[in-house]
Amino acid sequence: MVESAVVVGTGLIGTSIALALRQRGVDVALSDRDPAALRLACDLGAGRRLGTGPAGPADVAVIAVPPSAVPAALREAQERGLARVYTDVASVKASVVERAAALGCDLAGYVPGHPMGGRERQGPGAARADLFLGRSWALCPTARTAPEAVKTVTVLAELCGADPLVVDEAAHDRAVALVSHAPHAVSAAVAARLLDGDTTALALAGQGVRDMTRIAGGDPRLWREILGHNAGPVAEVLERVAADLAAAAAALRSGDPGPVDDLLERGRAGHARLPGKRGAASTPDYAVLSVVVPDEPGALGRLFAAAAEAGVNIEDVRIDHSPGLPLGVAQLSVAPRVQQTLAQALTRGGWSVHR
Amino acid sequence: MVESAVVVGTGLIGTSIALALRQRGVDVALSDRDPAALRLACDLGAGRRLGTGPAGPADVAVIAVPPSAVPAALREAQERGLARVYTDVASVKASVVERAAALGCDLAGYVPGHPMGGRERQGPGAARADLFLGRSWALCPTARTAPEAVKTVTVLAELCGADPLVVDEAAHDRAVALVSHAPHAVSAAVAARLLDGDTTALALAGQGVRDMTRIAGGDPRLWREILGHNAGPVAEVLERVAADLAAAAAALRSGDPGPVDDLLERGRAGHARLPGKRGAASTPDYAVLSVVVPDEPGALGRLFAAAAEAGVNIEDVRIDHSPGLPLGVAQLSVAPRVQQTLAQALTRGGWSVHR
Repeated sequence: MVESAVVVGTGLIGTSIALALRQRGVDVALSDRDPAALRLACDLGAGRRLGTGPAGPADVAVIAVPPSAVPAALREAQERGLARVYTDVASVKASVVERAAALGCDLAGYVPGHPMGGRERQGPGAARADLFLGRSWALCPTARTAPEAVKTVTVLAELCGADPLVVDEAAHDRAVALVSHAPHAVSAAVAARLLDGDTTALALAGQGVRDMTRIAGGDPRLWREILGHNAGPVAEVLERVAADLAAAAAALRSGDPGPVDDLLERGRAGHARLPGKRGAASTPDYAVLSVVVPDEPGALGRLFAAAAEAGVNIEDVRIDHSPGLPLGVAQLSVAPRVQQTLAQALTRGGWSVHR
Repeated sequence: MVESAVVVGTGLIGTSIALALRQRGVDVALSDRDPAALRLACDLGAGRRLGTGPAGPADVAVIAVPPSAVPAALREAQERGLARVYTDVASVKASVVERAAALGCDLAGYVPGHPMGGRERQGPGAARADLFLGRSWALCPTARTAPEAVKTVTVLAELCGADPLVVDEAAHDRAVALVSHAPHAVSAAVAARLLDGDTTALALAGQGVRDMTRIAGGDPRLWREILGHNAGPVAEVLERVAADLAAAAAALRSGDPGPVDDLLERGRAGHARLPGKRGAASTPDYAVLSVVVPDEPGALGRLFAAAAEAGVNIEDVRIDHSPGLPLGVAQLSVAPRVQQTLAQALTRGGWSVHR
């Protein structure tokens, strides 16, 4: 039912969708206004350039551009007849649909969509075929969307390993304000405070504040757009968070433990409501080895050469540097079945290995 | 200089310190009021029970109990003459030192300390010998602490793989309010809002809100204590975060993009100040090259060997890898002055290089 697709916009989301579809044997044509992004997506095997290969409308076109650009890109794609069914990936829905209708887009063949995968890094180089594995994928059909079109985009989401979920556009926008947009603004507010700290303060930062501010590293232009397009629902959540924090601060100043206790207990209860990531069973589960690495040219090369000699493929690597120390720690992710082999081989080679 | 140690309190932190010391050949005696925690720590190889084995004072005793319990536990340990030098691990320092002094503890042999490792899980079962590897370890000697005692605890921190950092107790408390305590309260405030969402809203939760609320899953009793003992500095940060969020909400309601832009830009700048451990994309001092890498043993080794041959040190690397695809992308961080050299050398070597 979905044998061919067009992806307009080869950023993180578009390229990840294209990679997932290619893995399932779908013919994918790509386009992007940025020639460098398009070239990298093609080099990664995400598909062929639009205009090469088979002509005629594809089964589905994915408009994977920022929210403001969706209505015009959708209208252009529909005018060119790129596909029989269209969807988008913008994380706000009501304002996008309203503007698409105003621009005269064909709503019968358009299924507003929002896959719930993302990373704080942008561009096709950060794309992953498994970005949506086990994630929800919201579908917000309009009153005029044809049921057949919803079926097609449901199949598209399933081909990407996601869990399609039909939801009213206003409910969608309130929900993402709560679980995504407002948290982004709060992450920025915590990260902004780090500008107040001196070097010592920042040296004391641990994993907690790193996790809390990770999403604040995202693209400010994209997020300004998202927050602006979902202003009311986001403002409502931010007002409540601000009120809770102001009350906690006042209670700390007056020595009243009640409101602080209450906030911590509500926080623990709210956190417990988050559902486990669905599809976790099929997510590759890697074992991680920490290896101490001298900070000098060639050291990582020697480490990876030693791994290759042991016949072990490194699936992922992260380097942790201790500022001021002549050493770093490389966190190597490998398939669990080869963890022991690699640890023994590296230890024999004189590396300091930690599980 | 540190050949024997006593650890009072075999929770997550105490047991992790004990495990690290045992790995370095230190004789470790353990005590805990909870017999089950003590037995598990001993079974894990963290040391022997206090009162068995060699008698006489150890080189150092680590008081690894919650902040409120430190002064009494310190006084008791000093009265029993457990060690020549004492330290603690409480994440607040000024109030602990003040109460220890009021209780008549010997301050000359006491080095207030705070290792910056932690996990959201508690107890000896969650302990790890590498919990402090590459982390800062704050030492806050009082005006009466003997320099020899500071030397001993510096060695202790180094034996655990940490980076000791001498800092004034008030500066420490302001710093951890900024990078740990206030972020914990903010995490709770975001998590508390999840009580407002229905099942659909929670189904749309992605990795961002999970990361932001992870620490809100921590022990409310411990955190109530920590926040209460560092009330002033924490309240100050929370007030500023609340003010930023209230201003952003008001701006969203009035359609004024300025304050939201400003918050997002400050958030990104603050996030970029976190030292190390953040990976290529957010490390501003390095240039980043993306290189397409085949998913096969030895490919990364060849890439790093090519970089070493060009005389270029790779400062950081991140691998983006789509499971099931024969390619990944390595994001190489290098000093900006060698970016061109590396790009040319790799391109000549047949690598697909993207800026």
